[in-house]
Amino acid sequence: MLARCRSLGVGLRPHLKTLKSIDAARVAIDPAHKGIAVSTLREVEYFASHGIGDIQYAVCITPDKLARAKAVAERIPRFSVFLDSVETAQAIAAATGPFNAWIEIDSGEHRTGLDPEDPALIGIATILRDGGVRLAGVATHGGHSYGARSADALAAIADQERAAVVDAAGRLRSAGFEVPGVSAGSTPTATHLASAEGLTELRAGVYTAGDLFQAGLGVHEEEDIAVSVLASVIARNEARGRVIVDAGGLALSKDRSTAALLDDLGYGVVVNQEAAPSLGRLVVGGVHQEHGEIDGVPAEAFARLPIGAKLRILPNHVCMTAAPYDHYLVVDGGSEIVDRWDKISGW
Amino acid sequence: MLARCRSLGVGLRPHLKTLKSIDAARVAIDPAHKGIAVSTLREVEYFASHGIGDIQYAVCITPDKLARAKAVAERIPRFSVFLDSVETAQAIAAATGPFNAWIEIDSGEHRTGLDPEDPALIGIATILRDGGVRLAGVATHGGHSYGARSADALAAIADQERAAVVDAAGRLRSAGFEVPGVSAGSTPTATHLASAEGLTELRAGVYTAGDLFQAGLGVHEEEDIAVSVLASVIARNEARGRVIVDAGGLALSKDRSTAALLDDLGYGVVVNQEAAPSLGRLVVGGVHQEHGEIDGVPAEAFARLPIGAKLRILPNHVCMTAAPYDHYLVVDGGSEIVDRWDKISGW
Repeated sequence: MLARCRSLGVGLRPHLKTLKSIDAARVAIDPAHKGIAVSTLREVEYFASHGIGDIQYAVCITPDKLARAKAVAERIPRFSVFLDSVETAQAIAAATGPFNAWIEIDSGEHRTGLDPEDPALIGIATILRDGGVRLAGVATHGGHSYGARSADALAAIADQERAAVVDAAGRLRSAGFEVPGVSAGSTPTATHLASAEGLTELRAGVYTAGDLFQAGLGVHEEEDIAVSVLASVIARNEARGRVIVDAGGLALSKDRSTAALLDDLGYGVVVNQEAAPSLGRLVVGGVHQEHGEIDGVPAEAFARLPIGAKLRILPNHVCMTAAPYDHYLVVDGGSEIVDRWDKISGW
Repeated sequence: MLARCRSLGVGLRPHLKTLKSIDAARVAIDPAHKGIAVSTLREVEYFASHGIGDIQYAVCITPDKLARAKAVAERIPRFSVFLDSVETAQAIAAATGPFNAWIEIDSGEHRTGLDPEDPALIGIATILRDGGVRLAGVATHGGHSYGARSADALAAIADQERAAVVDAAGRLRSAGFEVPGVSAGSTPTATHLASAEGLTELRAGVYTAGDLFQAGLGVHEEEDIAVSVLASVIARNEARGRVIVDAGGLALSKDRSTAALLDDLGYGVVVNQEAAPSLGRLVVGGVHQEHGEIDGVPAEAFARLPIGAKLRILPNHVCMTAAPYDHYLVVDGGSEIVDRWDKISGW
């Protein structure tokens, strides 16, 4: 992703909501940019405590979060928040902290953000300026890219995302505002963007680990997926061709995004860790809280799957699957653990 | 649930996998029984460290977990594990800890557990006895009750669950084994069981908080749900009738169990905390990692939903929703926080 951003002439701001890990941040940060994006205040505080100096809290802030945010803004060189309303602009100005503010633009997802043509855009920027709040820029997230199913459709959404935020920046500049940052991105759009003209940075998160849904979209190959859940066989029923593992809805998440793809992958694809040859294409077809069900296990595989055998399960949506864990055990090609990466969870 | 178990003449072993909280355990424990069930080793260690003396780890154990389990078994009066295989019986015997072992029986869910007629039942009990492992009893979980849609169907599964484990206990007793415990249960079956003949205890967890799925099954009323996620409005789009809150797929879970009911409740039902009169029946229809989308918000409600307004969201499946949180803020009818309950997460 860093190479791609360099070729497009923009900075990369990796979104650490996916891996929530300082060790991952150190690998992912663009040395020419140095910033990250996050999506919870706990992530903000965690990365600030580990010395990251440019943190973008990329979810619209609320007035009651400003005290907690202000404590971070006073502590690191460049802490920035998102907003899309006059009310929040007034609250940020009233909080009188050293905030940097991104006005969020809706580039077609219709989740948060102003339409680039919304008259409130200039009003919000004015409230910020009059309140002494530095305008970091305009930002958008083309999350509707997750609904696209072809490279052409993804490229079109990527350009729509770019155009919306560049348009908003132009409107602000025409009204006399300085707009240092023009930020867009999601993993699918960053991967398919043809030209970054007018942008200063791309934000993306899922690419840091990859998952089955992104592989299904064609963003990367399945073998590029860097995070898996290591599960143990806890029960076997050879007559039913069924193996039960100790990874269920909490360990894998109940994300079913791959149900929207041609190849429904249940709650994740099983990769056999201990037994060769491979078991073939097996998925976790059902989950309970701490149990996962793998059906269709061939009879000849049972001898290689005793109680306690380890299986890796690739995630449908890595942001959901990785979130509840305390740490990552890092391997490098094999099964030997070569490092342990710290991470944070919760809010 | 305690009153119900008393009327049925059995002990209640509350399943703390739902709330994962020592404060909740103190409320839920049956004074005549004193035991709890849990579903991760971290829960085992947490509750043991808080002085609970009878902990049943109700997920089949694997050999590589026995060292961690043994440390707890040596520390509390009554630690028990689940198994359903000869291999695991041999491993438990070889671990030489003061384990109590429940042989798990399949009462129709076909997840884990032996068929009550399986010849391996006697063999497993023999390995345990010869290895000096105390047989705690036989246990089952009628999890297929979650697929039932009428009180009659639930009562039938509840009796099937009871009969399977009582049958297995009878076979063991006929073979000369002492079977002190005969354990069954899930919230739906415990609620619908007509007679507990032959059982010594019922296990149930979801009833400790309740959720929309259980309300949909008729187990309790929606107003009985004791856990909600307190979310803030972070963006508003009056033209689209849409409000965005800061509770998404991680805060609510991506559990969609209510999709199987007549009334699909999205990712949870919105209960308005601050604005009266009520907003009507709104649900969180879509989620992103940290964003929830509420559509169909009436125009007249927007004035009562400024940025920062608080909404409560009732969970589809409370075990999934509650899991990632660090603690509960306890209210008693109103919005004043009267207590804070500690809890554990992870594995």
